[in-house]
Amino acid sequence: MRPVYLDHIAATPPRPEVVDAMLPFLGESFANPQSLHSGGQEALQAVEESRARVAGLIGASAEEVVFTASGSESNNLALKGMALAGRARGKRIIVSAIEHLSVLNAAKSLEKLGFETVLVPVDGLGRVDPEDVRKALTKGTVLVSVQTANSEVGTLEPVAEIARISRENGVPFHTDAIAAAGNVPFDVRALGVDALSLAADQFYGPKGAAALYLRKGTRIVPLVDGGVQEGGRRGGTENVPAIVGMGRAAEIAAAEMTKWIGTETSLRDHLIRGLLEKVDRSVLTGDPSSRLPHHASFCVEFIEGEAMLLHLDMKGVAASSGSACTSKSLKVSHVLLAMGVDHALAQGSLVFSLLETTTAADIDRVLEVFPPIVDTLRRMSPLFTKFLEEKTS
Amino acid sequence: MRPVYLDHIAATPPRPEVVDAMLPFLGESFANPQSLHSGGQEALQAVEESRARVAGLIGASAEEVVFTASGSESNNLALKGMALAGRARGKRIIVSAIEHLSVLNAAKSLEKLGFETVLVPVDGLGRVDPEDVRKALTKGTVLVSVQTANSEVGTLEPVAEIARISRENGVPFHTDAIAAAGNVPFDVRALGVDALSLAADQFYGPKGAAALYLRKGTRIVPLVDGGVQEGGRRGGTENVPAIVGMGRAAEIAAAEMTKWIGTETSLRDHLIRGLLEKVDRSVLTGDPSSRLPHHASFCVEFIEGEAMLLHLDMKGVAASSGSACTSKSLKVSHVLLAMGVDHALAQGSLVFSLLETTTAADIDRVLEVFPPIVDTLRRMSPLFTKFLEEKTS
Repeated sequence: MRPVYLDHIAATPPRPEVVDAMLPFLGESFANPQSLHSGGQEALQAVEESRARVAGLIGASAEEVVFTASGSESNNLALKGMALAGRARGKRIIVSAIEHLSVLNAAKSLEKLGFETVLVPVDGLGRVDPEDVRKALTKGTVLVSVQTANSEVGTLEPVAEIARISRENGVPFHTDAIAAAGNVPFDVRALGVDALSLAADQFYGPKGAAALYLRKGTRIVPLVDGGVQEGGRRGGTENVPAIVGMGRAAEIAAAEMTKWIGTETSLRDHLIRGLLEKVDRSVLTGDPSSRLPHHASFCVEFIEGEAMLLHLDMKGVAASSGSACTSKSLKVSHVLLAMGVDHALAQGSLVFSLLETTTAADIDRVLEVFPPIVDTLRRMSPLFTKFLEEKTS
Repeated sequence: MRPVYLDHIAATPPRPEVVDAMLPFLGESFANPQSLHSGGQEALQAVEESRARVAGLIGASAEEVVFTASGSESNNLALKGMALAGRARGKRIIVSAIEHLSVLNAAKSLEKLGFETVLVPVDGLGRVDPEDVRKALTKGTVLVSVQTANSEVGTLEPVAEIARISRENGVPFHTDAIAAAGNVPFDVRALGVDALSLAADQFYGPKGAAALYLRKGTRIVPLVDGGVQEGGRRGGTENVPAIVGMGRAAEIAAAEMTKWIGTETSLRDHLIRGLLEKVDRSVLTGDPSSRLPHHASFCVEFIEGEAMLLHLDMKGVAASSGSACTSKSLKVSHVLLAMGVDHALAQGSLVFSLLETTTAADIDRVLEVFPPIVDTLRRMSPLFTKFLEEKTS
């Protein structure tokens, strides 16, 4: 049986056109874009064409796009680079409590250099209230960072409004749009952000290619110092094949996104309705309406996320229990806890994230295999036994 | 006519076996190594096998290898990460004057955070005197970084001796071995280094994969904070295809390096002899005996490196005038100036760096096309005209 891959938030498969575009740069066209000879010039042209394509996806100018090697690097470059560039003005940075670990841990590293982090709370649906950002802003604030969408619960944040409030207070604003870029349409000028992170492996591009949009004039200190690459904002030989792949993926996403969203939204809603109906004491996490089109996340009571994943895997279904970056640590998600989800319930976290190629048959298969898995696991669960006893006593 | 590519120091072509090893991870096996499902486990296993192969190339243990995205990132991680990890002990770092820009500029960034950089000089052949390092060491020194080989002049440095002196003084030692790793044999334990940078694109691996060897117990602060990847030392989704390519390249280099060195040394010496004989007023730069086997670098009087490169390119020969990272800036090489090369002469810098596939016919072609290029350029050179007038007057 065809495996069902519903772990978009961990990685998307590169489109065949993307791989085709990359191959020449793993072969004949291997030169370094900084070389003056014609091979180098050819590589440089490919990089610059990709930069324009990535810029096109988000409504930026090409020179505002800095290529990096991962979404995490983009987030670290934004947080550390913008905070350090602004350190003469102050030491306060504001981030939401449900940011990705690359943002939260970058903020922690900045604290060791004398910065102070303020965590803005979220409500039960994972939404940041822009007014909370306004209240946290002080004269000495050098950066606000709030994500565009949360990869664990799918919630879309009111980024344009937070960006406006930051701008009114003269504070640079960064958004981690890694889960959103290439999957939902937005325009950096309409959003009004100063910096925005995106990663190719979230929209059918390759691993190893990501970018940071930096609005013209935004000051930044490089994370990787080196030569003249990326306008001096990020040193290191450009990963030409991956960058070319990202450019092609951006072009495809720009052209096909509307179609993807239509299919995904309808399949996602079918999955959410079906699962909540078939699995007793399960809840949808995140915002039911304002959420990523490919994202369905749940908490299932009395059982653990990891056990569900392994049983689903045995049935040929790949899913996730949250961020791939933390799944191994088996800690309870800081996102769910910040949303006020009970600690025990948060352990039963499960995320199905769809691909553009996901079919109704895939979703039906999940709805067929998943409920019996829950039954099996609950029969082994002391928590569930206790619950039944209390219910019947 | 077959183009002659002699720009190894800028990029090497990935071996076909390397690309073959990468392809599955751009296709079916695209999963995130941190995912718990079987796709993720397969990707993780591939990453760990590659880690063992890279470790094998340099005599390290697998867990001492941290994957990064470029040699420059490895150098930045070493410099900033080790300096920041040691900042309670002191603020002094010691580097040689001819380090790569990723080391020198990382040191400059550290100065903005309160560190002090001491530049150790080199002699006319580009050699660091270990006694100069000893003299520069103080109680508050937190890091010494001296490269294994210089990519612009090919000189091999007395790294083992400098490492010993650092160790005797209790100071961590890093070496940028990017130009050397996979091209000349060494063993991190025999060298006695605490950290060592290497990059796959210097030994027929792909761009986007590099590593930092960190001796067990060496303290480091991450550059890219994130999840559990790379033992918490470098966040961000692993670039699985590139890492797999690097592993395969390391395996090939370990097996074939001796053969490569034999061929390259003999062709290099043929090129050096032939060029010095055929081109009047040209000099070899760097150490004539203790140098990279694939490296022949010159200064040609009265003309500029860039002009030579462009004329060579028109004849189908790809070469370099120094570091690819700086070539665009057209500044005179800091390496040559530190070696005491006259400013005017340093402008005529030219580097031919051989591949393992370079043939005697390639070298003969360079020796055939290059002398007429020099003649042409000198006829246009005011400096050369002046020289001739002075000579005949």
